[in-house]
Amino acid sequence: MLYSKTFTKTRKEAPKDEVSKNAKLLIRAGFIDKLSSGVYTYLPLGLRVLRKIETIVRNEMNALGAEELLMPALNPKENWLATGRWESMDDLYKIIDARGKEFALAPTHEEVVVPLVKQFISSYRDLPLSVYQFQSKFRMELRAKSGLLRGREFLMKDLYSFHEDEEDLKRFYKKVEVAYKKIFNTLEIGKETYRTYASGGSFSEYSYEFQTVTEAGEDTIYICSSCDIGINKEIIKNQRECPSCTGEDFKEVRAIEVGNIFELKTKFSDAFDLNFKDKNGKTQKVIMGCYGLGIGRAMGAVVEVMGDKKGVRWPHAIAPFQFHLIEVPSENPDINARAKRLYADLEKAGFEVFYDDRQVSAGIKFSDADLMGIPYILTIGEETVKKGLLVELKNRESGATRGIPESFSPTKWRYPLSM
Amino acid sequence: MLYSKTFTKTRKEAPKDEVSKNAKLLIRAGFIDKLSSGVYTYLPLGLRVLRKIETIVRNEMNALGAEELLMPALNPKENWLATGRWESMDDLYKIIDARGKEFALAPTHEEVVVPLVKQFISSYRDLPLSVYQFQSKFRMELRAKSGLLRGREFLMKDLYSFHEDEEDLKRFYKKVEVAYKKIFNTLEIGKETYRTYASGGSFSEYSYEFQTVTEAGEDTIYICSSCDIGINKEIIKNQRECPSCTGEDFKEVRAIEVGNIFELKTKFSDAFDLNFKDKNGKTQKVIMGCYGLGIGRAMGAVVEVMGDKKGVRWPHAIAPFQFHLIEVPSENPDINARAKRLYADLEKAGFEVFYDDRQVSAGIKFSDADLMGIPYILTIGEETVKKGLLVELKNRESGATRGIPESFSPTKWRYPLSM
Repeated sequence: MLYSKTFTKTRKEAPKDEVSKNAKLLIRAGFIDKLSSGVYTYLPLGLRVLRKIETIVRNEMNALGAEELLMPALNPKENWLATGRWESMDDLYKIIDARGKEFALAPTHEEVVVPLVKQFISSYRDLPLSVYQFQSKFRMELRAKSGLLRGREFLMKDLYSFHEDEEDLKRFYKKVEVAYKKIFNTLEIGKETYRTYASGGSFSEYSYEFQTVTEAGEDTIYICSSCDIGINKEIIKNQRECPSCTGEDFKEVRAIEVGNIFELKTKFSDAFDLNFKDKNGKTQKVIMGCYGLGIGRAMGAVVEVMGDKKGVRWPHAIAPFQFHLIEVPSENPDINARAKRLYADLEKAGFEVFYDDRQVSAGIKFSDADLMGIPYILTIGEETVKKGLLVELKNRESGATRGIPESFSPTKWRYPLSM
Repeated sequence: MLYSKTFTKTRKEAPKDEVSKNAKLLIRAGFIDKLSSGVYTYLPLGLRVLRKIETIVRNEMNALGAEELLMPALNPKENWLATGRWESMDDLYKIIDARGKEFALAPTHEEVVVPLVKQFISSYRDLPLSVYQFQSKFRMELRAKSGLLRGREFLMKDLYSFHEDEEDLKRFYKKVEVAYKKIFNTLEIGKETYRTYASGGSFSEYSYEFQTVTEAGEDTIYICSSCDIGINKEIIKNQRECPSCTGEDFKEVRAIEVGNIFELKTKFSDAFDLNFKDKNGKTQKVIMGCYGLGIGRAMGAVVEVMGDKKGVRWPHAIAPFQFHLIEVPSENPDINARAKRLYADLEKAGFEVFYDDRQVSAGIKFSDADLMGIPYILTIGEETVKKGLLVELKNRESGATRGIPESFSPTKWRYPLSM
């Protein structure tokens, strides 16, 4: 993509009312725009990142055997009355239409998915099954100051699983846990993301949250020094021992919940009478699990963890582009010809390249590249030619630079590069 | 995909309150589920179709040079007050939060996109620019009886373009018209879809709707016998001549609006003071166009036009799968082995195959295949083996059948097949 052809521009300053690091950097770099507190537009560069995170998560969900569908945001009041959450959920947006019909704007989809699958489940032969979606959710947050970490409208992956018995739920639950770890590793926040004991509600002793440690986090968690697992505030209040290893030494840190996995058991099957006939012809309640992962929130968490004072830094797997090519403006037409050729060769070799072809100073281009955070910055200018190089390469993370000789053409490059 | 692994099932009957052909067939075939009037879940098979339509439209938008972004549904009241539409739009869903802050649930995005691009446009050098999105929109329909043709929540592609002058707008407008025709041709509703004169609002004489002729349509349009263009009811009321060729002979038909292209000119630039400095340094108003295309609605229109009494029929480009493979249950284990091998070979050759591997009667499998509407139905059973064939092929549209010899392996097949 040519910088000159994208309509967004970087900015020196973020809006004054924006306090979170992720939103400040992402707005300055031209990835998102703030419409209202907790409500953001994804600009072309930001949407590329969002879609890449989505694809990573989708591949893991498919590998679990889950089927993708898409449920509506507009939910009839009756479904939410059936579970009692119409009254009990304080942060539920409610709408009333001109005829007096009421709807909830869904913050989660148990109220839709349970009556849906009920139409297709009658026997143990129909189980297990699992479905997921990527869908815009709504939550009436009174304070929304954390950028993408806590939005009023936000893109989530929500997965729901249905089982014959608790053993089968536990097997699947464990697989989702492994898939989540893989996802957070791919997003390069695996080291900072702790599986964290949380309350299991009325049906299980514990559920798990995936908490990414960052100063910007709105939660406080306690990391066990012995076994490296997290425990949330609610749990630590009631017990001073690690539920995993009985250790008693904890480190208190700030963190943001990027995912959760929850054994719902029969909570929603009871509400909607979701039953099946078992092998003996006996009617049983379906056992459920649910598993959330915030796509926009994960993007925000990556920026909180990896961003530095120069700007955003993207992991290889979700960077909007793999290379940021800077042409240092020059009177010498050979420079432009070389940059264009390299751009074409890189694209031909299958790489994604953001090519800064603008007629602005090298200084502006370099600081924009640092702000935007694409992993490798390539530069072509007079100096490159004088040195007899094809291009100069800089690693955005380490700052390390290297000259690439003319003979090392893009068809030979292996991504990520070894530097 | 294996039929036995997907959780949806076909149904004999659609819900009693469902009157539209598209919703009845799509629900019976297991493509969508009705949550509430005008509010549907896309089930795995339906989501495949929806995403394919999205991809076709996306490719055309990118070819126009438009950039994809994603704007929020939750819109602050102030933006809608600025254009007067907070009061004037009867079908706008409004929400009030616990603190008394009001939002609209956006049915269209001029109120967001204009203030957004205003931040990036200052000079004629920043123009033209065009942006688009695929986004769930909301409209407070009091009656919503047409299935996917008119929803309360619906997926739309909306494109907005920004220009220096009306000539440039007209140039782009013409290109979008061509792109739309190409899209409707790919969806195989090109012949039934008429460019139709509609009111241009307060700023242009005319705008264009793309109307697909179908009995289920909620609009009445008039097709000019001389030049084959459509004219909508509003226009024909005031003039009895075709605006294109001055013909006076029309055919009255029912139709559904699947797209529209509209010269907004300065309507929204005025409201948000969207200006630019021209080549002479003079401040001018930006000239705008907007271009909608309903993704779910197009899916519904395809079903209305192409569906027959047996079920849905999908165009090649958007069918959820290319082949529907039926294994006729048999005591002979060779049948199962052959079906499995063909399934593997087809997938290896890059085809998308829906394999009905269930232990149910051939009759059920054949009628399910007709209901689901995948373009080619492949059958393997005792008869196939006796005839010495690899597989028997049926064209869902024409009903024509053909035996495929053992020697004609899937690597040699070219899609669509010549039959």
